[in-house]
Amino acid sequence: MLSKSQIKLITRLKQKKYRIADGFFVAEGIKVINELLNSSLQLHFLFTTESFVDNNEQEILITENELKKISFLTTPNKALAVFKIPEQKNIETKGLIVALDSVRDPGNLGTIIRLCDWFGVKELICTKETVDCYNPKVVQATMGSITRVNISYLDLNMFLAETKIPIFGAFMDGENVYKKQLPKEGIIVLGNEANGISKNIEKQVTERIAIPRFGDLQETESLNVATAGSILLSEFRRS
Amino acid sequence: MLSKSQIKLITRLKQKKYRIADGFFVAEGIKVINELLNSSLQLHFLFTTESFVDNNEQEILITENELKKISFLTTPNKALAVFKIPEQKNIETKGLIVALDSVRDPGNLGTIIRLCDWFGVKELICTKETVDCYNPKVVQATMGSITRVNISYLDLNMFLAETKIPIFGAFMDGENVYKKQLPKEGIIVLGNEANGISKNIEKQVTERIAIPRFGDLQETESLNVATAGSILLSEFRRS
Repeated sequence: MLSKSQIKLITRLKQKKYRIADGFFVAEGIKVINELLNSSLQLHFLFTTESFVDNNEQEILITENELKKISFLTTPNKALAVFKIPEQKNIETKGLIVALDSVRDPGNLGTIIRLCDWFGVKELICTKETVDCYNPKVVQATMGSITRVNISYLDLNMFLAETKIPIFGAFMDGENVYKKQLPKEGIIVLGNEANGISKNIEKQVTERIAIPRFGDLQETESLNVATAGSILLSEFRRS
Repeated sequence: MLSKSQIKLITRLKQKKYRIADGFFVAEGIKVINELLNSSLQLHFLFTTESFVDNNEQEILITENELKKISFLTTPNKALAVFKIPEQKNIETKGLIVALDSVRDPGNLGTIIRLCDWFGVKELICTKETVDCYNPKVVQATMGSITRVNISYLDLNMFLAETKIPIFGAFMDGENVYKKQLPKEGIIVLGNEANGISKNIEKQVTERIAIPRFGDLQETESLNVATAGSILLSEFRRS
């Protein structure tokens, strides 16, 4: 049974300003919720249409219709949980780090978080203009990877100005990434979907690289930010 | 000025069965439409809120409100065009080919078409269960690449059974793709988002490969099909 105040809280969490004010976010579906339950995240509410967690005292059984009322998905998926947003942890500046210069699409951010997890990147740093990682669409797209990557929102320009490890950015005139010797330590900057890496951040880039294009027609658009990111991470790790 | 029959035609084209029956598809936004106008595609209607094509007799000026009525986008983007769906061309079995075993998400298909274009893959072959490439969301996501890749829907199992070039598929137990000598010719099979490569198609795969995982936690989900595709295509082309 759902209370009015619970419905109100959950509905608010669709918006970033309320997630910040309340300090909670929503996750849906048994698979994603199970991954989050197995992390250090703190559960606040767990609503489900059928019991799936052994001995979880917080599990609240609700009807399909109640779930429909609170779900952010077009096809609600058996369970919805509210977790506490964890405090931002310190950034460990070692190994490979991915930096996002205002990635706006929730699906792209979700894919990039999964990629970081796959390639063992522990730190993802984002400009404050990057989409919020607790946006419900991002949480769904990460498939649980969100618990294994430390995501920080900060003044990226200032952070990069102060770091001493090499900073990589992809540009058309960069060095062929397939031929470059890539280090074990560095920051890979990925830019905004429409505008790429901004002028300010570009000035901080110490290593300009490029993913060569093989299509023979010049009109080919640039690669999507998440696919470019996957190719770059693969190149850094394979070497 | 929009006629009732034009509105009816465009609205129908949201659904695959009507695209097949009528033989038309919709593209939106000046950038995408311009790319399609510069291809061999045949224009049927071009509606726009401001003139952007020099001397195009087919350009029909409409109001913002009229565009809102026919647009499939939440934020309509100045122009909507209807093109004729081209006839399926013969497949040239040479070089690198990408095969899709029932990829269902329009965004993933759009990204994969862009990737093929970037990496100079001319042929994309798909099971009949793969999402239709003239789905409006796919057309938008391809950013015009759809005109430079030959996309065929066919009985993939039969096609693979008859081909003589090597067939690559990614599986957990496959050979490390970073260490394998990759040929200039071959078919790369990418599987469905939830189920991967189906049993029938798996039997046709002659080369089992794997993208190594670097995260130290075993729970990491598999990679998204489009990001896995980007890493594999990059590996084939870099060598």
